[in-house]
Parts: sequence; C-alpha cells; structure tokens
Amino acid sequence: MTTLSNLPATARMMARLEELALITDEPGKLTRLYLSPAHKQAVEKVTTWFAEAGLSPTVDAVGNIAGRLEGRQPGLPALIIASHIDTVRDAGKFDGNLGVLAGLAVIEELRRLGDKLPFAIEVIAFGDEEGVRFPVTLSGSRAIAGTFDMGALGGHDEAGISMGEAMIAFGLDPTAIPAIARRRDQMLGYVELHIEQGPVLEGANQPLGVVTSIASIKRIAASVTGEAGHAGTVPMPFRKDALAAAAEMILAVERIARETPGMVGTVGRIEAQPGAVNVIPGEVRFSLDLRGPDDATRETGVERVLAEITGIATRRGVTLSLASGYEEKASPCHPAIQAGLAAAVRSIGYEPIALPSGAGHDAAAFHGICPMGMLFLRCKGGISHNPAESITVEDADIALAALLAFVRGLDPASLAT
Amino acid sequence: MTTLSNLPATARMMARLEELALITDEPGKLTRLYLSPAHKQAVEKVTTWFAEAGLSPTVDAVGNIAGRLEGRQPGLPALIIASHIDTVRDAGKFDGNLGVLAGLAVIEELRRLGDKLPFAIEVIAFGDEEGVRFPVTLSGSRAIAGTFDMGALGGHDEAGISMGEAMIAFGLDPTAIPAIARRRDQMLGYVELHIEQGPVLEGANQPLGVVTSIASIKRIAASVTGEAGHAGTVPMPFRKDALAAAAEMILAVERIARETPGMVGTVGRIEAQPGAVNVIPGEVRFSLDLRGPDDATRETGVERVLAEITGIATRRGVTLSLASGYEEKASPCHPAIQAGLAAAVRSIGYEPIALPSGAGHDAAAFHGICPMGMLFLRCKGGISHNPAESITVEDADIALAALLAFVRGLDPASLAT
Repeated sequence: MTTLSNLPATARMMARLEELALITDEPGKLTRLYLSPAHKQAVEKVTTWFAEAGLSPTVDAVGNIAGRLEGRQPGLPALIIASHIDTVRDAGKFDGNLGVLAGLAVIEELRRLGDKLPFAIEVIAFGDEEGVRFPVTLSGSRAIAGTFDMGALGGHDEAGISMGEAMIAFGLDPTAIPAIARRRDQMLGYVELHIEQGPVLEGANQPLGVVTSIASIKRIAASVTGEAGHAGTVPMPFRKDALAAAAEMILAVERIARETPGMVGTVGRIEAQPGAVNVIPGEVRFSLDLRGPDDATRETGVERVLAEITGIATRRGVTLSLASGYEEKASPCHPAIQAGLAAAVRSIGYEPIALPSGAGHDAAAFHGICPMGMLFLRCKGGISHNPAESITVEDADIALAALLAFVRGLDPASLAT
Repeated sequence: MTTLSNLPATARMMARLEELALITDEPGKLTRLYLSPAHKQAVEKVTTWFAEAGLSPTVDAVGNIAGRLEGRQPGLPALIIASHIDTVRDAGKFDGNLGVLAGLAVIEELRRLGDKLPFAIEVIAFGDEEGVRFPVTLSGSRAIAGTFDMGALGGHDEAGISMGEAMIAFGLDPTAIPAIARRRDQMLGYVELHIEQGPVLEGANQPLGVVTSIASIKRIAASVTGEAGHAGTVPMPFRKDALAAAAEMILAVERIARETPGMVGTVGRIEAQPGAVNVIPGEVRFSLDLRGPDDATRETGVERVLAEITGIATRRGVTLSLASGYEEKASPCHPAIQAGLAAAVRSIGYEPIALPSGAGHDAAAFHGICPMGMLFLRCKGGISHNPAESITVEDADIALAALLAFVRGLDPASLAT
C-alpha cells in the first residue's frame, strides 16, 4: 500500500457528486431519468463544471455534454473518458456520475501538471445508460459511437411520450443525431471509471479492478408443467410435482454457473400454480438470467443449462417450455487498455484485480468501434442502485490517481490496431 | 376377478348420486356448503331416500340425517355407516355423497335379503366435512362422537354469519348439540366408504383399498432470508441466493418423503422477493405440508426435514425462519375393521390394497371413540375436488358388494376391545 495521493481534484469531485445528487425528479430520493427536468438541470450544472475545468462544453442532439482537451497539437485522435449522469429510481450517488466527474478531475489535474499528451481527451456525460424511461438504452454512447438506432425515437415512456418528443421538449434536435457520431479516426479509445456494483474488490481488499469484458447475457423464460394433485392423497412415486422439478433445475443452474469461471446464473422470478398449501404445484414458471465473460463461455453455459434442465424434465415426466428472451453479446475490453490500466494501478501501489463486468455499461457501445476498457472502483458491500451506494474519499482519490496515471502513461501507438 | 354382483341397489344409488349432484348453491357447478340453501334442500331430498329405504330418519341439531336399522333385537349397539353431503366449491359428485348413499344401499340390500344382524346399523349423512364455510370442520361427525366444540358456534363465514346463526336460520337448535352425542356403549363401530381421491388403486389395478390410518398432518410456513443483489455483478461464490437455498430445501423435503414409507411432503406455495429477472432473490417464503400414516412416522419425518433444511440454511449462510402451523394427529383404523374389510373385499374376488388416507375424513372424528375404519374406492385418475371426479358403475357395484359382505360378516365381538 502506498500513501494517499491526496489529489486536489478529489475533494472537488466528491463535493460535486454530493451537489449533483441533489438534482432529482423525486424529492427525498435520487431519481434522474433521461430527458427529465432533473436531467436538464443536471446538464446545466455539469456544463458549468466542464467550463470551470477549462473545457468548452457542448450539449449534443441526444443531450450528451462533451468537452475536449487538445493534446500536443490540435486535432489529435481523442481518448474518450465518459460515463452517464442519468440514474435509476431511488439511486445511489456514484453509479455513472463518478465516471463523468472523474473525467473532469483528470482534465483539471493534467492542467495543473501542465501536461501535454500525445492525444486529445474528450470527457462526455451520457444521459441514458440506465434505460429506465424508454424501451432502449445507451442512447448517448451509441450516438457518439455511431450506432444509434433512429427507430428508437418512436419508443414511448410510461406516460406515452416518445423519445423523439422528449428530446424536442428538452430543447434538442433529434434530426441532428447522426451528425454526432465520431469518425473512427477521431477516437483513440474509450475508458470509463465506474463503481463495481458488486462485492469482488471489497472481498479482495483492493480498491481497483480492471474489467476484462462486459458480460454476454442471455435470458430465458421457463415453464414447467407437471400434475396438480392433493397434497395428502398422491403418494410420492405418483407425483409430477412441477415445483420439485423446478427446484432441481434451479440447483442445476447454480451448479453449472459455479463450475464455469466468470459465469453467473440467476433465477430471480418464480411462480407456482395453483399455489395452495395443500395442492401439489401443477405448473411453475421461472426466469433464467445467464451471463458469461465472453460469448463462447456463456453459450456453452446456456447449452449445458438447457441440456440439464431438459434432462430433469424428461426424467421427472414433466413438460418444459422455454422461451428465448433478451440476449446481449459480450464486449471484451481491449488488451492494451487492460494492460495500461493494470500498470497504472500498480504504479500507485495497488494490485489490479482482473474481473468481468456482469452489468452493462456505456463502454459496451464502443466495443468494435474503438479500443475500450473500464476501471472498477470498490463500493461498500457491493451495493448499487440503492441510496446506500457508498465509496470512501480515499478510494475516490486512489481511482483518480490511477486514471491519471493511465492517461499520462498511455502510448497512443498501443491502441493503433 | 369375479363377475359383477349387479346389486339392485347399485343402479338406484348411482341415479340418486346424479340427482343429488343437481342440488347446488351455484348454478352450473356443484357447490353445497354446510347450512346453505343447497344443503337444506339436500337434507330434505336425502331424508326422503332414508324413508324410502325403510328407515325413520331424523335431522339432528347440527343438520345430520340419521336413520337406524335395528338388529336381531332392538337397542343393540350400532355400526355407524356414514359420510358427508356437503361439498367443496365446484366439486365432484362422489366425494362424501357416495358413502352416505352406499350406507342406504346396504340397508336396502339387507332388507331385500331379510338379514337380521347381531347389531344395529345407523346410516348418517354429515353436513360439514369439507370445512369450506366456517373455520372448523367435522362438525357433524364430532357432534355424534361427542367431541363437538360449542365454541365453534361463534366462528364466522365470509359474510360474517356465525355457525350458530346459520344453524338457527337452517331451523336447527344449537343448544341441543350436546344431546346428539352417542354414548360409547351405543356405538359398535364406524365404517365409511369414500372415493380414494388419489391414484394408488388405479395404479394397482384394483377397485378397493382398506385404509390403514388417516394421516398425521403438520404444516409449517418457512421463510429464507439471503441477500438480494445484481444478477450480473455478484459472482457465484459471493451469493446468498434465497431461492437457490429454498430449491435445495424443496428437494430435501421430496427426498425425505420418498425415503419414508407412507409419508408425503409438499411445497405448494412459494414466493420470491424482489422477484425481478435480473435480481438475486433476497427472500423466499414457502409452505410445507408433511403427512405420515402415523404420528411417529410424521414426527420423525418432520424432524428430519427441519434438521436438513436448517443445515442447508447454515451451510449457505442464509437465515431460515419457521412458523409452526396446522397440526392433526393420525387416526389409525381399527385392526378388526381393517381385517373385516379386507376379508370382505377378498370374498368378492378382489385384492384389498392397504393404504393410508392422506386426506382427512369424518371417520377421524371417531378415532379413540369407537372402532373405526374406511374402505376406499378407486376414482378416475385419482382426481377429486373437481367436476372431473369419476367412478364407474361397475366399481360402485363392487364397493357396495364389499360393504355388504363386511356388514354381513362382522362379528360384533371382534370390536369389543
């Protein structure tokens, strides 16, 4: 362990995070949905901070705030440092917001140090990572990456307002979205600092983790049909208990996920019918959420799960129906960014923990577009999407120091492939 | 297999069952709750059938219809042949009603044969076995057995009508209930024919079963508290998944019940919180219904289940809370009645299948009061409490022949203990 770097920017960043957390659509809790009044207010506030950091911020057609620090000469490809300022309902203060304000803090430190880098830096505050309001997500990052789907403008929120209408009400011009897209030769790479939202770093007693990839996800809706019957009059050998079958399937999911490094498997929803104390369940529906660090691992895991639960159904004489749901390919992080982040973490005296991200992030929008990577910061108890979300000032300082070291040490040639 | 006995009483009994099934509180389905208008109408109808069979029926203070056939001399202790004429909502035609009308058919056959038995027979139609309307059940049989709890008169139905009020509205005098109780020296024994309501006899390809005991029942409400978390960000080794823990417990219940002869174990209700596709369940509540043929078997089974699921909770680091619920002691059938019923079944050419009753019955009210036993008749698919409840005419005829053979072969001295 090294002593703390105590960067001047850390205290300012933490104060800004507290101030930003007061901007909410729901008094008494932090809720800041994409294109909402609170989002508008946050864009205004964060824009002033961009300007204070010496950038000349612009708000683009989807509501992103972007500010550019030139490198040794103007017009060099830019390393994008970004995250989001929208939140879930009743959110914590750090999810997304930390990454944006850390980007500004890096700019402030670079200015203080008088560094001139062999690349430009763009700090961006995306407005739609959580996907709470509209049917789609990553609208801001996809617009920058050039993969925004204009069809998404027709998607409605609960109040029946389309995303396109909300943009216009916000003061934006959705027809200008295609023009936001950065050309590939303008993007050196993308790096994002984010709280881990899980317990791995805390468990490893290390503040920082280098993300290896953003998870490959597959969701499946399963339905088991057995035979309902009287809990007293049907002897065990005669039963086709849909819940006992589902229980065996749930344990198979858990076992396969445990056996597969980096994989997680979750049955979050379950419903048994008819649902009476004295009736053997005749039908059970449950959800499957399977994630892996890469597509091959996840696909193999899904295949094993499906083979096992199908076998369980056959052996028990129950019927299993499966409906394929949401699927998201993995976004592996660029090796040079992983290596650079790991070296930066080590340079300030910590052991970088390599870990996959099971949750989605704006960074995923840049996979296949430019070299992309993420730095995770430990958060208390792994808790996120909750007002109890918490990081220490010391950890924030360490994260900033690492991000700064990464930027200062980055050789643009390493990202040339 | 023997040829069918084709008793004249069988056709009449089946026709009466069809006619009785039309008397309902809910048009279009069979629903006949205790002390309801349909129950009143059924009492009137069945009373005329009692009279047609040559009995002098009376309706007692709880609404039972009772009719007595004297033996070789008047005043001999009576063998009670009884069941119930109330039903569940949307019921089948045979549950309960069969046993009452079979008792009448036995009387008719005895009269036709001119038999004079060394004991009297009382046929009784109880009105409250299903326990659907009021908080208690077995009101009719308990009043006869002398164990009716007068406190039950204060229990209310969903409309706020107390059982006492309902009796008065029905035309009954609840203050006369204690006087209904038969003296022990008036009761030779109690025997009841009932559909099995399960699949054992159908599976054994035999029409009749001799009940060994009415199940010992214990219900427990279980609650598992683990840790909710993001389905993507919490690696498997860090999880305290309440649903995976519950799944292991459900399989333990199933395994222990399978390993314990005569025992059944059912988890009929389950609820997982927060119940989102992408959130690890933090809390799961489920019901346990454990039954055994005798108290010792059931108690040992319950102890094993509780020890195993407590062990599972400890091993997984989740908290298990258990709330003890409904409990009913076993009612073993009298050995001489079991032997007599088995001999009677064999005498007409069938193999009596010995089986416990997992469901409760009026017969249980006579356990410890007088020798008690039950004869089970196979029903289609084991289905009961459902309009699809079905028996064949041939099986009804066989049941009647067996019951008649039992009555004719019964040595009162065998029940003297």
